[in-house]
Parts: sequence; structure tokens; C-alpha cells
Amino acid sequence: MTVRLDYTNMMADVVGEEHGLRDVEIAGLAPTVAEIHADLHARRKQGMLPFFDLPFREEMMAECQQLGDEFAERFDNLLVLGIGGSALGTTALFRALVPLQHNLLTEKQRSRPRLFVADNVDPAGFSELLNFLDPNKTGVCVISKSGTTVETSCQFMVVQAWMRKAVGNDWRDHFVLVTDPAKGALRPLATRESIRALAIPDGVGGRFSVLTPVGLMPLATVGVPLQRLMAGARSMAERATRPELETNPAYLNAVLQFLAYQKGLHISVMMPYSDRLRDVADWYRQLWAESLGKKFSIDGETVHVGPTPVKALGTTDQHSQVQLYMEGPHDKVVTFLTVDDFGEDVGIPPFPEAGDLDYLIGQSMADLIKSEQRATALALCKNGRPNCALRLSTVSPESLGELIYLFEVQTLCAGGLFRVDPLDQPGVEEGKLLTYGLMKRPGFEEKRAEVEDWEGGVNLRQL
Amino acid sequence: MTVRLDYTNMMADVVGEEHGLRDVEIAGLAPTVAEIHADLHARRKQGMLPFFDLPFREEMMAECQQLGDEFAERFDNLLVLGIGGSALGTTALFRALVPLQHNLLTEKQRSRPRLFVADNVDPAGFSELLNFLDPNKTGVCVISKSGTTVETSCQFMVVQAWMRKAVGNDWRDHFVLVTDPAKGALRPLATRESIRALAIPDGVGGRFSVLTPVGLMPLATVGVPLQRLMAGARSMAERATRPELETNPAYLNAVLQFLAYQKGLHISVMMPYSDRLRDVADWYRQLWAESLGKKFSIDGETVHVGPTPVKALGTTDQHSQVQLYMEGPHDKVVTFLTVDDFGEDVGIPPFPEAGDLDYLIGQSMADLIKSEQRATALALCKNGRPNCALRLSTVSPESLGELIYLFEVQTLCAGGLFRVDPLDQPGVEEGKLLTYGLMKRPGFEEKRAEVEDWEGGVNLRQL
Repeated sequence: MTVRLDYTNMMADVVGEEHGLRDVEIAGLAPTVAEIHADLHARRKQGMLPFFDLPFREEMMAECQQLGDEFAERFDNLLVLGIGGSALGTTALFRALVPLQHNLLTEKQRSRPRLFVADNVDPAGFSELLNFLDPNKTGVCVISKSGTTVETSCQFMVVQAWMRKAVGNDWRDHFVLVTDPAKGALRPLATRESIRALAIPDGVGGRFSVLTPVGLMPLATVGVPLQRLMAGARSMAERATRPELETNPAYLNAVLQFLAYQKGLHISVMMPYSDRLRDVADWYRQLWAESLGKKFSIDGETVHVGPTPVKALGTTDQHSQVQLYMEGPHDKVVTFLTVDDFGEDVGIPPFPEAGDLDYLIGQSMADLIKSEQRATALALCKNGRPNCALRLSTVSPESLGELIYLFEVQTLCAGGLFRVDPLDQPGVEEGKLLTYGLMKRPGFEEKRAEVEDWEGGVNLRQL
Repeated sequence: MTVRLDYTNMMADVVGEEHGLRDVEIAGLAPTVAEIHADLHARRKQGMLPFFDLPFREEMMAECQQLGDEFAERFDNLLVLGIGGSALGTTALFRALVPLQHNLLTEKQRSRPRLFVADNVDPAGFSELLNFLDPNKTGVCVISKSGTTVETSCQFMVVQAWMRKAVGNDWRDHFVLVTDPAKGALRPLATRESIRALAIPDGVGGRFSVLTPVGLMPLATVGVPLQRLMAGARSMAERATRPELETNPAYLNAVLQFLAYQKGLHISVMMPYSDRLRDVADWYRQLWAESLGKKFSIDGETVHVGPTPVKALGTTDQHSQVQLYMEGPHDKVVTFLTVDDFGEDVGIPPFPEAGDLDYLIGQSMADLIKSEQRATALALCKNGRPNCALRLSTVSPESLGELIYLFEVQTLCAGGLFRVDPLDQPGVEEGKLLTYGLMKRPGFEEKRAEVEDWEGGVNLRQL
């Protein structure tokens, strides 16, 4: 066990009655959580929630490891084409588990390829990236379950031509497609063109897919030890599938966040005190926002519910956001991610005539960053602001595996508490259809007309 | 003029009465804005708001250009030590105005040094960075007005020893200190040790300092044309100092945001549809949060006010956050940053048996990213969600100069509307004192005892 949930500072006896929680409130949700648990595990048994069992799929992992090793052997760059759930987990774990300067090292200094996750369709950014990369030395991992995600499709079409121009018919050998096992647009392409493909297991949605080939293939390529990552996830699987609220950290954290929301704390800040954990907050942001931000409850009521996740970084954002967190509206709950042992430390050396800074000499950066986190937590408490911490003993494949599994189960449980479907995202459909219209996809002419009529009809206000 | 404020979709006739604004509400604030204007410009005349006049300080700019050119000549890396306002503006403009792959290019491919902004005290991250950099080829820019910012001080002490170990007494020639013109801890050090120093003009706070040597020295070093940046700022200075609400985009945008807040839209999302503009949202996040997030009004009332700025990126976050923005609580106002001309474009080439994707062929990435922004804006409107856009004709030094100046004036005006002091940040003081205590700074023993007593006294809850 390398991840602990510390919720001391969420409680009314610490932060005050107005926004703090009481034990009785937490306990009061135990029956609801028991129902949610029963429902989740009934659905799991029916094969409807396969994400629960991903850490146990040795074959899937081995397949990713093998292909990742092969790509690492053959290429100097891995270019991932994917967006949202197809990109965020990889980015988060790459930053956490591979040296931060990895991409800047020479081929000799690092034994594994550089990683580039292209998760946008900015023409300037994308063309600059392609100009930079040598296609001969680049493997490409295209990730889309449906194969029709418009951004990824567009990227794929561009990159395929770019690659073919450089290596001719060998272009296929530079690609792997991560997609649906049977359906979608990429699977038949893979079959027809004999392009290697890895399957995203049925029933695993994008934001729950980091422990499938979506994340595992790129991470294996850059050298993340998948075995250790999965071992961490399995370790949390034991804790996060316990039926009782009081022994299950995923359920407990869901309850804490839910109760905070009920008290008007609609903004959920995740604030790692660790450079490596910075992008975990971005991955979590999708998981939490898309899963819980809903118009309708499962009972069909209009609820317009959902906490807004916000990413911050300690100590950096103490100099940017913490003023607001301390003094602004009582609408936030802060979750710190802390690290007990950073692995390396930096001593603060003597400094000529240091004067006012003399006190720092002989201490270390770890002392400082930990002190700042403790100070910030206490200052928040003194201002009546609930906060909690997920404490990692180290930043390791194991602890990241634990954290991912924890957050995924927590999110499902929170879906039950908020009474929304945490697995759908109906609110993005309309934007997709309107985009199809503007991009002249056949059958969407009406959508195009709708945008044009709208834009032509409004009273334009510009300055 | 390269930046336009488009607020069509903020209005009730477009997004509905419940959260949309009416012309009469905007006009109703004109007298208040006139008062704010009079007050700001009276204080400007008294020399109390020198940030207004930064774009006109040719000498300051020339000094930064000269030193930047010299550093670029002598070094292959520029390491900036600074945090918050000493880092965010540089990071934003570096990303916007220097090729995105700059740091990955070889010394030959780029004519200017790489830039590393170290804005944290993570021991693992920091030691990895120093292991990567060759001190012989590295110039260091230490930025702290007071010279006692604990993170920057700590970094400076470490980097000074690291440099001295490599180059001996020449270490001084590798440094420039950007600090107070007369006071603080760094100024006497600069004098005593004959280290070059640049002055942050009196009265310019950290989050308003990007157009001082704080931003200008690093940006000159990496090749940002300061003349063009400042010309852009001057062009906006003309527009953003007009007294009338209806002709001043900074005042108008402040009013729009203020009115949205009054209607319960307490979260202000900034969503650039541009890779290059991504970190502008981070810089703005500090400006907006620290300036407006306040416990007390200027009248001494307890108000706990302040919008929470949130950073998003289009199209990327359509696959992460937009579900929540469309369907979640009515508590957000979205500001898009859009680009008319990306400079480069990427055509979508033919694809063998493209099938469903056939419609994309012959169009471009610029078509796609622009269509997605229009589609997202309309979908928000259809869901009754106010949104506006700042439209840049191009991403250029001029447009970024305009944008910075616009946001700074907007923030001061918003301070007047919210009736808070936008120039202070009293809420971070307590955390600083507690940190001093934990780091054993003499005179702060009581603060250390306070933390230890607190931590020892609470009912620890962990799972």
C-alpha cells in the first residue's frame, strides 16, 4: 500500500461547522454506498464494467509490452495520435514515470524513444511537429475506438501521407492502430492494409482506458514497466472493491467529495505538490468532469449537476491561485497529492553573506516543498476551507497504478451518489454534429445550415 | 488592431434571459466605469500605476534587448529562477512566439538559447534539470522583487553553488538578477558581487510585470522581438485607456465578466483554440484570481468574492471538459481565444478507401479547428451558456502585446466593479509565515509551534 487518503482536514472539528463534514454525515451515506456497491458489482459480473478487471489481463499487457519493445527497437520517436481519453492518461503517466527531460536527451543518453502526444488539430502546431520529426525514425500509434473521432481521423490522414512520402509502401510498418476489437472505421482498415492493431476491450470507455493498449502501448514503448503499474492497480483493486465505506478509500473519497458538493463546494481543486504528478490532475479532470457533469439524473430529472475539477500545482500555484482559495467564495474543496519520499533531494548549500536567507542553509528542497504543503493546508483550515490529501509514499509505477484505479472506482461511486450515469457524455454530441455540418459531411447539411442561419441571424456585437 | 472582443453570445437575445446580459445592464454600469476610469487615471498621474506606461519605456526595453542578445551570444541555455508573476508571463509568451519545438532543436537549428523556467522546488524535478544542463553553457536569470521569495532564494542558492563548482569565480558572469531598483535582498548582493542586475520599476506588482525586465530579459534572450511586442501593447494602450465603456474593450470585458458573476456564473473559463496560446490562460489565471479573489472589499466589508479562472484548450478539452460546460451547473462563462490566420495550414490529403472520412479530403486543419470552435460556441448558446471570444487576427508579438495590456487594464477595472483592491494578495501571507516557521527562520518559532500543535492536536483520519 503506497497511497493513503488523509481526510483529517475535511472534518467540521478541524475546519468548522459551516463547510466541514461530520462523521454522522459520512456514516449516513453508508447504506447508499452499499447499494451502489451491490449495483456496480452486479454489473461487473455481467461483464458490463470490464475496467474493474483490466489490471488482471496479463495477455493484453504482454502484447503491449512486446509491441512497445519492438517499436522502441526500431524507432527514435513515438507519435501518438489521439485526443481526450486517448491521450490524457499516457501524458500523465509519461510525465510521472519517465525522466522529465527525456525528450531532450540524445538518442544515446536515453534508451527509449521520445514521445509526442498530438492531441489537437492546430495547423501551426501540427505542421511544426511534423517538420521536426524524421518519419524514417518515427512510429505512429493511432488511437480511436470508433475510428471516426474527427480530430484523430484528420491527423491520421495527414500523417499517413507524410509517412508514405518518406518511406513509400513501408508506411504500414510504422503504424499501430489501437481501436475497437471488431467494429469501427479503423479495424477494417487494419485488416485490409495489414496494419498492426491492438484492441481496446469491449465496454471500456475512453476516460477509463489508460490501463488498456490506449495507455499501455505508448507507455511500454517509452519504458514504463507495465508489470509494476499493473501490480499497483491490482493492489488498489483489493482495497477499492471492498463493500464497506469505512474500509474502501475510493468510496470514502467519493462520499467526501459528494458531501462537500452538497455544502456548496462546487469546485474540486486537485493540487499535486510534485512536478511529476502535475498531469495526473489533467487526466482526473476529464474523468471527473465528463462522468459527473450531467443535465439529467438517472431518474430522468433535470439536475444540471457536476463538480468542476480544477488543476493546480504546488508550490507554483501558491503564487497564482492560493490567494483566491484562501479568501474567495466558499466554493472549493482542495485535494493535495503529496509525496513522502522524492527519491532524490537537493541540499541547500552555504551562500556568501546569505543574511536573511541564512536559515535555509543545510536544509533541503524536500524540506521546503513539504513545509509549504503543510503550511498551505493549515492556512486553508484556519480560513474554514476543507482540504484532504492523497499521500503517495513515492512516485512509482505502483503508486500511479493505485491512484488510477482509486480514481476510476471513486468516479463510478460518485456517479451513484450524484444519481447520474458516469459512463455517458451526451452533452458533446450536438457540437460534433454541428462540426460535421461545417465540415460538409454528407447527411449533415441541415446542421451546416443551422450554424450559418444562427450566425447570420444574431445581432453581432464586437469591439 | 489585431484583437477584437466579440461578445455576441453573452447577450440575452442569444443565450436567453436567465443567464444572458441585456444592453441596459451593460449601459447601467457606464457611470460606475466612468468613476473607475477617473480614479485609475488620477492614480496613474500620481505615479501609482506605472504598469500603464511600461510599453513606452524605450530605455528599459533596449537594456533588456542588449543583455538578452549578449546572453544569446554566450550561452546555449537560459535558466530562469522565478515563480508566479516572475514566471508565468515568460512561459506564456515563449510558447506563443517561439517555435513550439524550440528546445528540442539542435544548437545549429535554432539561433537562440533554449529556455527553462524553473518555477517549483520539487527536489526530483530540480535536480534532474540541473543534471541535464551544462553550467558552462548556461546563463541564469534570477527574478524576485523582494529577493526573499523562499522558492526562488532556495533555487538561487543551489544554482549558485552548482555554477561555482563548474566555472569557479566566473560564476557571477553567468547571472543576471532582476529585482527591485534599490531595496530587497538581491540588490545589495548584485552591488557587492558585481553581478549584473535589471530593475523592476517601482510600483509594478508581480502579476503586472511581464512587460518589465521580468519578462523582457528572458524573452529577448530567446529571440522574441521586443519592439513588436511593445508596439502591440501601445496599440492597445490607446484603446484601453479610453474613458467610455462603449469604446474601451478592457472596460467592456470587465463589465461582461462582472455581470456574469452577478448572475451566478462564478467560474470563468478561458479556452484558446490554439496550441500557441495555451499558456496565456495560465498567465491570465494568476492575474484574475489573485487580483479579484478577496475576503474584504475596499470598504472593509467581508465579501469573500472572486471568480475562479479555469484554463481549457480547444479542441482538446472538448474531449474532457465540454460535457460539463454544456450540461453541468449554470456557473460558467467561457471566453474563447480564436485565431483568424494560423500562418501555416495543413491540407487533408486523399486517403485510400477513406469511406466515412471521405468528406474531410481537400479541407484543412484550420477549417477543422475553426469549425469546432464555431460549433462549440453555438452548442453552448443552445444550452443557454454565455460565451464570448477574443479574436486575434494572427498569433504575433503585436497581438500578444495587445492581449496582455487588455487583460491588465480589464483586471484593474474589474477590481473597481467588485470593489476590491486588485493590487494586493493578503491571503497568501499566513502560509508564508507558517512556512518560515517550519523552515526554522529566526523569529518565526511561534509559527512552527502553531503548525506542530495543530497537527498534533487534530483527530487524524486516514485510510
